[in-house]
Amino acid sequence: MTPDANHATEGGRRIAVLAHGKFPDRAKTAVGLLRYGPHEVVAVLDRDNAGSRVNDHVADVDDAPVVERFDEVPECDALVVGIAPIGGGFDDSWRPDVRAALERGCDVQAGLHYFLTEDEEFVELAEEHDATLDDVRKPHDGIGVAEGKAADVDAEVVLTVGTDCSTGKMTTTLELVEAARERGVDAGFIPTGQTGIMIAGWGNPIDRVVSDFTAGAVEEMILETGNDHDVLFVEGQGAIVHPAYSAVTCGILHGSMADRLVLCHEVDRDAIHGYESFPTTDVPTLVDLYEGLAAPVHETEVVAGALNTRTHGDDAEAARDAVEAYADELDAPATDPVRFGADEILDVVLDGVAAESNAVEGE
Amino acid sequence: MTPDANHATEGGRRIAVLAHGKFPDRAKTAVGLLRYGPHEVVAVLDRDNAGSRVNDHVADVDDAPVVERFDEVPECDALVVGIAPIGGGFDDSWRPDVRAALERGCDVQAGLHYFLTEDEEFVELAEEHDATLDDVRKPHDGIGVAEGKAADVDAEVVLTVGTDCSTGKMTTTLELVEAARERGVDAGFIPTGQTGIMIAGWGNPIDRVVSDFTAGAVEEMILETGNDHDVLFVEGQGAIVHPAYSAVTCGILHGSMADRLVLCHEVDRDAIHGYESFPTTDVPTLVDLYEGLAAPVHETEVVAGALNTRTHGDDAEAARDAVEAYADELDAPATDPVRFGADEILDVVLDGVAAESNAVEGE
Repeated sequence: MTPDANHATEGGRRIAVLAHGKFPDRAKTAVGLLRYGPHEVVAVLDRDNAGSRVNDHVADVDDAPVVERFDEVPECDALVVGIAPIGGGFDDSWRPDVRAALERGCDVQAGLHYFLTEDEEFVELAEEHDATLDDVRKPHDGIGVAEGKAADVDAEVVLTVGTDCSTGKMTTTLELVEAARERGVDAGFIPTGQTGIMIAGWGNPIDRVVSDFTAGAVEEMILETGNDHDVLFVEGQGAIVHPAYSAVTCGILHGSMADRLVLCHEVDRDAIHGYESFPTTDVPTLVDLYEGLAAPVHETEVVAGALNTRTHGDDAEAARDAVEAYADELDAPATDPVRFGADEILDVVLDGVAAESNAVEGE
Repeated sequence: MTPDANHATEGGRRIAVLAHGKFPDRAKTAVGLLRYGPHEVVAVLDRDNAGSRVNDHVADVDDAPVVERFDEVPECDALVVGIAPIGGGFDDSWRPDVRAALERGCDVQAGLHYFLTEDEEFVELAEEHDATLDDVRKPHDGIGVAEGKAADVDAEVVLTVGTDCSTGKMTTTLELVEAARERGVDAGFIPTGQTGIMIAGWGNPIDRVVSDFTAGAVEEMILETGNDHDVLFVEGQGAIVHPAYSAVTCGILHGSMADRLVLCHEVDRDAIHGYESFPTTDVPTLVDLYEGLAAPVHETEVVAGALNTRTHGDDAEAARDAVEAYADELDAPATDPVRFGADEILDVVLDGVAAESNAVEGE
């Protein structure tokens, strides 16, 4: 998978996003597309919130109606499944909407472990109505084992890691890319999950590749883009202490050979999401684990933190206090990149990168 | 995959084992089958050693001729590919032997990432000659994400972990199973790789499952067998600091929720096999990493060590010294399970298990 490989995501398309029962808090793909996607979102499908507006739930994005079913969606080019349930299955209650989209000739894109392109009914309907099915979580052929070469690229590699799933790793990564570019730094984005791939239009779905190739799938993307940028921001996945997903995290950590880590956490998260009998691990212990585990493959350091403070709502003061407490725990700068901007941690994350960039340009 | 699911490995079959150019030191599947398999090995195919005998290379197994090509193999039921190259590809120089085996009506079994059952020529030949193709590295359908429940089973779970690949994790696991059974302990074996699966006739090839399901594939096997035994010995894979394969190791560590770890090492190994620019990590650091990484999911401890001393050849004294030095580094009992037997570490590995077994029986 290279940046040229395309998941039918040229910018400027009009899309509807399916997020039944989960918008916005359990629909991170939907929110990611609203906040960072290159497309115009014409509607969100959530039967539990039908009749409301996107801005009733998410303030800082373009508004759109929330509707009950696809029949109510205005004219559009594609339906995107914007939910990523644990296990990645397809909920059959979504079938009528996918069917209706295809019957209208709209493309359908999803990032599930269940592949639309292997669903007989959808394949037939897509053919009949000249629509495209796009499974962004289906890895391309030819991914193999890592060679331990990601550190050979020119770019500095920055990886987001987490205390758990859904702590804001993708968001933090994209905010860092944007903030770095605003400073004139040539920053690349390495998408590793379905939402990142939908936004960027390319990428390897690391959690779906063969386990033996986990690190290799990350390394491949870094080798292909790492000499074209001064810094690469790699979207992390899961957590190194997650009962189910730690393998993915570990493969990304070693495959990326990251130079710097940004640890993402959500305020007051005290148990692993969906695995409530497992408490989260304290921050200093996690820092030691990430750094200690990475070191034999490539020395790295947690240089900054990103704290998701959405549960503090409008209370910016409480959010600021939480960020400061988190920075103390980390013994490193921290921010909430959505609330306060990624710029607050950019100095330390980019330390030395801009200068290196100028030096290269001056050669 | 359950112990009932069968990879066509009922005992007593006559098999030929393909190990071209790699027998015995780089043919761990071949040697594993010779040492622990339920089958009669009638020949080993290795064109570089043709004309020699198995016992010229491996002393403590049943003898058989080493031949150049399948045409020279005596009557048999199956050809087994007994090499596991980095990357798991199929070397086309093996094609004539696989072809010849199928033409003789022999089944062919392999544990490669390349699937025989997706090779058009082999599929046609197998059909024509009523032979079976068996890819033991092809995971069964229905494997999913871990639920963090492996620790709920009655059995104590013992996992072998390593300082690198090919340090003797499978061998140590099988020697421990045998030694435990000799003491009358009800011990189960959890196969996680191609050789283990070929020997046991069941198992999940963990390095081949979808990355997200790595821990789940191990957990599945433990939940299915863990209440039928007093102790489960889980075959480990890779190493937690391996540049390519650490994801697999991490998934097994967390998915198995092991109660005890046995750290496997090869004497004088100072770089990662096949990744020579990466030095191995010192033993105390590795112990801390394995225990520290496991703890947030399930507390565990490295209770013993297994040292592969084959490079010391006939020098038993040097081997004994090396084992003692390794035990000092570990601060735990150690053995070379092949040279000195697994019994030397069994007390600490089984500590409390036999008593628990009796207690249960007495209820």
